[in-house]
Amino acid sequence: MKKNILFASFLTILFILSGCADIKNQKTIQPKAKYVFYFIGDGMGIGHVALTESYLASVNDTIGFNKLAMSDFPVMGLSTTYAENRLITGSAAAGTALATGSKTSIGTIGLASNHTDTLWSVAHYAKLAGYKVGILSSVSINHATPAAFYAHQPKRSMYYEIASEMIASNFDVFGGGGIDFYTGRNNDTTDIYLLLENAGYSSTKNRTQLNKLTTNNNKVIFTSNELTNSAALPYSIDQSDTSLNLADFTQKAIELLDNPNGFFMMIEGGKIDWAAHNNDGATVIQEVIDFDKAIKIALEFYKLHPNETLIVITADHETGGLSVGYDDTHYSSNLKILQNQKTSVEFFSDFLNNLIDSISVDKFNIDIALKTGQDFFGIDSLKPDEFEALNNAILDLKTAHNNQNQYANLNPIAVFWLETINNRAGIGWTTHSHSANPVPVRALGAWQELFDGYYDNTDIPKKIAQAMKVNML
Amino acid sequence: MKKNILFASFLTILFILSGCADIKNQKTIQPKAKYVFYFIGDGMGIGHVALTESYLASVNDTIGFNKLAMSDFPVMGLSTTYAENRLITGSAAAGTALATGSKTSIGTIGLASNHTDTLWSVAHYAKLAGYKVGILSSVSINHATPAAFYAHQPKRSMYYEIASEMIASNFDVFGGGGIDFYTGRNNDTTDIYLLLENAGYSSTKNRTQLNKLTTNNNKVIFTSNELTNSAALPYSIDQSDTSLNLADFTQKAIELLDNPNGFFMMIEGGKIDWAAHNNDGATVIQEVIDFDKAIKIALEFYKLHPNETLIVITADHETGGLSVGYDDTHYSSNLKILQNQKTSVEFFSDFLNNLIDSISVDKFNIDIALKTGQDFFGIDSLKPDEFEALNNAILDLKTAHNNQNQYANLNPIAVFWLETINNRAGIGWTTHSHSANPVPVRALGAWQELFDGYYDNTDIPKKIAQAMKVNML
Repeated sequence: MKKNILFASFLTILFILSGCADIKNQKTIQPKAKYVFYFIGDGMGIGHVALTESYLASVNDTIGFNKLAMSDFPVMGLSTTYAENRLITGSAAAGTALATGSKTSIGTIGLASNHTDTLWSVAHYAKLAGYKVGILSSVSINHATPAAFYAHQPKRSMYYEIASEMIASNFDVFGGGGIDFYTGRNNDTTDIYLLLENAGYSSTKNRTQLNKLTTNNNKVIFTSNELTNSAALPYSIDQSDTSLNLADFTQKAIELLDNPNGFFMMIEGGKIDWAAHNNDGATVIQEVIDFDKAIKIALEFYKLHPNETLIVITADHETGGLSVGYDDTHYSSNLKILQNQKTSVEFFSDFLNNLIDSISVDKFNIDIALKTGQDFFGIDSLKPDEFEALNNAILDLKTAHNNQNQYANLNPIAVFWLETINNRAGIGWTTHSHSANPVPVRALGAWQELFDGYYDNTDIPKKIAQAMKVNML
Repeated sequence: MKKNILFASFLTILFILSGCADIKNQKTIQPKAKYVFYFIGDGMGIGHVALTESYLASVNDTIGFNKLAMSDFPVMGLSTTYAENRLITGSAAAGTALATGSKTSIGTIGLASNHTDTLWSVAHYAKLAGYKVGILSSVSINHATPAAFYAHQPKRSMYYEIASEMIASNFDVFGGGGIDFYTGRNNDTTDIYLLLENAGYSSTKNRTQLNKLTTNNNKVIFTSNELTNSAALPYSIDQSDTSLNLADFTQKAIELLDNPNGFFMMIEGGKIDWAAHNNDGATVIQEVIDFDKAIKIALEFYKLHPNETLIVITADHETGGLSVGYDDTHYSSNLKILQNQKTSVEFFSDFLNNLIDSISVDKFNIDIALKTGQDFFGIDSLKPDEFEALNNAILDLKTAHNNQNQYANLNPIAVFWLETINNRAGIGWTTHSHSANPVPVRALGAWQELFDGYYDNTDIPKKIAQAMKVNML
């Protein structure tokens, strides 16, 4: 009898020790993150999400924030972004930090700042550990952020050399945007798409082809037939209803990568940054919404595998010094007028340049300029100081045109209308470059608690590797 | 025998159910937050802390961030700040939200927007539950943020009426800054300090008196003998080594409030906002450091009572649209030069106004203007466009002076030098008002996990009440 009681007590104690200890040290028994989504909103700071969410409320005639899917995430962290040799980072150094966990110098991809030591990404180590890997972006797949996950080059501008490294990575899915300079800068080297096909990658360039891809396609590179400059997808604001977007590619990548050994996927919303470089508020909003749609696709997958899925959302840096608050509008704002902006400022600028070429610059006058503002920004009348600024922009346009100096970036009339609508909306920017302001990190799912607090961008891939039980050494 | 085994098994199961369940639902067995520090950095957004931390690194000739004490906190949340009737909030509505958990209209203190329904603060409920309560600020104690914790007035500008409510609150400690308009707007009503003394409050106005306060002093109002305009403490950058600062008051408040029933303390860093309204970067930095010193005092207390202390740090809103990143400096920055700024721009502006009055405005010339820039900002030479801007500022000064229009806020020469040093440092601002950008929430200690994620400012006092097991109804 005593033996039995002793035995039962022994079992009891054993059970308590094992069971309770496991619950107490939950981290040691949590299943590893088998399915990982690593979302990088290029340039997406606090202000970009705030602008989008307060704009969405304004469109519904309410005051406040209509939260995006990403904003329901339970864990919020904050990350510093500085590079090894500059406080305000660039996408190459920041991408390398987010991919490899090491700081490097500005412009460097997947190498230490000595340009000799190779830095390997969490995607590389995940692949070695048996995970399938996908690298997606709305800009070209050899642009700095995606490049940092598979390439090792001293300069981010070495697009062809970067793209060549896709093959050696042996990653399973690449795509979204296309490959910039895929036949080299001088258009005289072997087509990278061809090299990828020779290496066993199925290549698709439109929705019909994309739809046909199955897990029988061993390795895949997919893109859209609507690529714009630099092999990027068009801005969301410029896309049609049938355009392939980041959410479409995310959906297909899940289908292709899902397997018993799990997957790691990096998905970049690359044009939030580009729109912010132009200080183009309405376009930023649509890019953030587009990025959030891709996140929603990951969320659907998470709901099927909540214990084994980890979704992390962050940014490589903040672009534009964006705040919902502007000196001239003081405490008021009118974000709703941004819905009147029809296209990105880049699209509008191209339109203007074509128009001016077709009618000749001499015939471009204030009436035409006013008409374009009405058509593209829904602005019907100007205040005297705005009117004067528009006239000055026309002078700038003509001077630049006559000097054969095709306005370095954007057409001055386009810039005028953009600034007018931003100013009236009450949006402020401090720069057309990046800022050093830290960026938020949002996390949901397996090991989400690792991402709480305030840390450096180099910590993020290490935390992801920890969640995946992948050794990064 | 079987019975005994059954009994042992029953005990086992009981033990497992109780013990493990408690561990699993850790929240239900965590001790309540007995000691609560609620720090509010008025206007302190992501950019203000980023500027301070990257400035501190630059002073050490390193690239990156030298983290403040507040940045070691394990939990990071993000909070929206909008008011009931405006996207960009003000300190009264935001203070009311942070104090009472309810939105209200701009300018309203502790009342619903109908100006009839009373809103009671978490401090009020804590007092009812037996906690001692302290309300501290570096600005006047009847300014919007502290006022929202004890007063109920339709307008934040009703300073005398607000201050009168200190007595009815029955709170234990008030202070830091003094009481603005303590004899009414027309200087014709009973001195509030006298009313407080009659109600049993010990009143101190310098360090010697402060040092003498003990727990024998039942209720206390303490302030400094160096109050500046609006009964605020001087800007940290303008204080001397012997000046009483927010950390000194926090230290004394702990000593006075510590008791077996616990305490709730609200500590406002009020002049971060004021400096940001002036777009005065160097002064913002010193205010954030000063605020962090007060947080360090709370951290020392936390170390003695880690299981029962909760420290929460947030802001009522962001002021200035501040980013470390400016259009003219692109990707570079030179924050270190901010150490050459000797005083706040307000102090400098007052100095200039006195100087001009003493020598007469006609005699104020470019040489004198250049000398002031050297003395107060360490700037030895100007670029041609800067030189032109200074000459224009002198013209503005003389025009304003001759029109008896004493430059609405700051002396134009002061503004010129301030903008020059900010621009050269690479700091950008979008507004002299507030922005709608969300603000970080940092938490450490008992129930810290409640403060993770992204939520509204009205949630924060509710979370604090939950941690304190105080009912807010």
